[in-house]
Amino acid sequence: MHALTSELPHITIEILERLRRRSPRVHCITNAVAQTFTANVLLAAGAVPTMTVSSEEVAEFVKGADALLVNLGTLDAGRREAAGLAVDAAAERGIPWIVDPTFVDRSANRAAFAQALIAMHPRAIRLNGAEFTALVGAEPNADAARRFAGAAGVVVGLTGARDLVASGTATATIENGDPLMAKITALGCATSALVTACQAVETDAWSATAAGILLIGIAGEVAAKTAHGPGSLAVAIIDTLHALDRATILSNAKVG
Amino acid sequence: MHALTSELPHITIEILERLRRRSPRVHCITNAVAQTFTANVLLAAGAVPTMTVSSEEVAEFVKGADALLVNLGTLDAGRREAAGLAVDAAAERGIPWIVDPTFVDRSANRAAFAQALIAMHPRAIRLNGAEFTALVGAEPNADAARRFAGAAGVVVGLTGARDLVASGTATATIENGDPLMAKITALGCATSALVTACQAVETDAWSATAAGILLIGIAGEVAAKTAHGPGSLAVAIIDTLHALDRATILSNAKVG
Amino acid sequence: MHALTSELPHITIEILERLRRRSPRVHCITNAVAQTFTANVLLAAGAVPTMTVSSEEVAEFVKGADALLVNLGTLDAGRREAAGLAVDAAAERGIPWIVDPTFVDRSANRAAFAQALIAMHPRAIRLNGAEFTALVGAEPNADAARRFAGAAGVVVGLTGARDLVASGTATATIENGDPLMAKITALGCATSALVTACQAVETDAWSATAAGILLIGIAGEVAAKTAHGPGSLAVAIIDTLHALDRATILSNAKVG
Repeated sequence: MHALTSELPHITIEILERLRRRSPRVHCITNAVAQTFTANVLLAAGAVPTMTVSSEEVAEFVKGADALLVNLGTLDAGRREAAGLAVDAAAERGIPWIVDPTFVDRSANRAAFAQALIAMHPRAIRLNGAEFTALVGAEPNADAARRFAGAAGVVVGLTGARDLVASGTATATIENGDPLMAKITALGCATSALVTACQAVETDAWSATAAGILLIGIAGEVAAKTAHGPGSLAVAIIDTLHALDRATILSNAKVG
Repeated sequence: MHALTSELPHITIEILERLRRRSPRVHCITNAVAQTFTANVLLAAGAVPTMTVSSEEVAEFVKGADALLVNLGTLDAGRREAAGLAVDAAAERGIPWIVDPTFVDRSANRAAFAQALIAMHPRAIRLNGAEFTALVGAEPNADAARRFAGAAGVVVGLTGARDLVASGTATATIENGDPLMAKITALGCATSALVTACQAVETDAWSATAAGILLIGIAGEVAAKTAHGPGSLAVAIIDTLHALDRATILSNAKVG
Repeated sequence: MHALTSELPHITIEILERLRRRSPRVHCITNAVAQTFTANVLLAAGAVPTMTVSSEEVAEFVKGADALLVNLGTLDAGRREAAGLAVDAAAERGIPWIVDPTFVDRSANRAAFAQALIAMHPRAIRLNGAEFTALVGAEPNADAARRFAGAAGVVVGLTGARDLVASGTATATIENGDPLMAKITALGCATSALVTACQAVETDAWSATAAGILLIGIAGEVAAKTAHGPGSLAVAIIDTLHALDRATILSNAKVG
């Protein structure tokens, strides 16, 4: 059984405190555009990122990690091979792993690879509406997300102007954020990485996915109040995430 | 026939409005140092970037794009192969594509590859003085730029303290910018990406090239007024580009 | 013979002036996460970075460079091959080269590769405590650093809350910096690049290593006074490094 949606802000506070206390290691196979920003988001939240996509090294890094992200952006042959090795190593160790099917709406090969990964039972998937439709063949709404989550046995984190977090049995909506966030490259990819970090310290995948998305949403919304555009917003999101406290989370969370 | 140079500020305003309204998709084969900053510059101007250099994927992404950038920085075997496939896909679809011959003055192989690409008729080339001399074998001045543009059938965007935009029949000079911009890595690469985005919404390659260079020049010059050094200048250029309006362009443009 | 530790602040000022005057070319084989920030740090200090890891190009770039960094982060087959070619080219030209054994504590293969590189006589190694222990098999303290430096014939730059710079015959400690710097990805990698740039303008490897580490430490400490978190700190470090002057160095340096 999941928590109630009304409990998610408090659960998110606890998860953030655990991230800062335990400093989980998060290995990220992610795209070339997202690597630096993703690493800085993870560090700001308390996690310790590693990023190699070398097939010679990746299993060794995953064996020393607490959670794994597989993001399909800039999916070259090396990343493809590394993803397979990394997922095998994660399964062997029993650590949570997450899929971000970046731009599957733009590439049939990438969509097929995402489907194959999902069949290997990741803990969660974080994606946007266009990617959801390409992958699931349905409009990106709560019913479709819940059905897909139930059928695939994963949690679905579907982000957009309004975020949805669905398991087969529960749905939460998150209405934090700011429209300017859509102008920052790799913000969705970094959100997936934070969702991954949350899985490392919280066994309920639905709560952990909601926590990661809520943390970015609140950080973005608070940061947007002082930012002058997408450049300073990206910088301020890192600062805000690092400073995020209980009172800011409770007073800003819009979870339903 | 091209527009008059005196019309370029107004044309640039129109091009920027089209970027924001149409959100053209720009696929970038660019170097590893430039990918993130380039994506953020394109998003700030209204375009939608994709960045894969995987030879398995690149043709599919170019087929869904409105313009293509081929930047020769960090030119490994993968990028070399991807560039060929991407240019073929762009030619097949008839979309504009641009070459940025990064650091051809430091590598004979890269210069030869650039020459081969130029023979395939890109819409424009954006480069600096040292790269121009390595490629053309002449001093980087207006006469040489116009001759080279005419002979190769491309527009040449030659940037430096004073920028030149030359076709075989017309030359514009742009004197916007700030010396501190030379201390930001990949600013020239991001300029080429913005020039590429402009080609997606403007069929006159000379006007589109001038518009992209002018937008970065004005954004940099305005941003430099409040920046404290090259770090904050890079952030402020993104913010300024996102906020750039008609009045700021008209009052700052130094086009001759 | 080395200088006295008390002379290091003045030597650092001279080295920074030389970087700005001579603009040495620094070729970096570095990890995908660090490339952009590293390039911006080098530019802010006065150096000119290049970053290709293509095995077809790297020797040509090193032949035109004044110093070489080999950083082992995200060590794929391409970077491994490029490192070998680059070190050969550096040895042939007699230019200084530096090793940063990133995350050798997380990968036995990477540690073995680092050992092989160190046997080829780099000018210096910059690493953290965990990496030192993995490589040397000893606690990261001054005695162990000096012994290792003497045996391997390199200078060791061991960074942490308190930095140590050891040759076989001399040790300096540097206590500049700020704890928030640990939350910025690739700051250690960028420090190694700056250490590399310093070798290009200073033949005493111990002084050059100390200068690079001291410059980053002072820039970070000064920048932290106005930063709001790790995002703005990274930006402010670039700004501060670019503006660093004699008085700021002399009044802040904590060298012993």
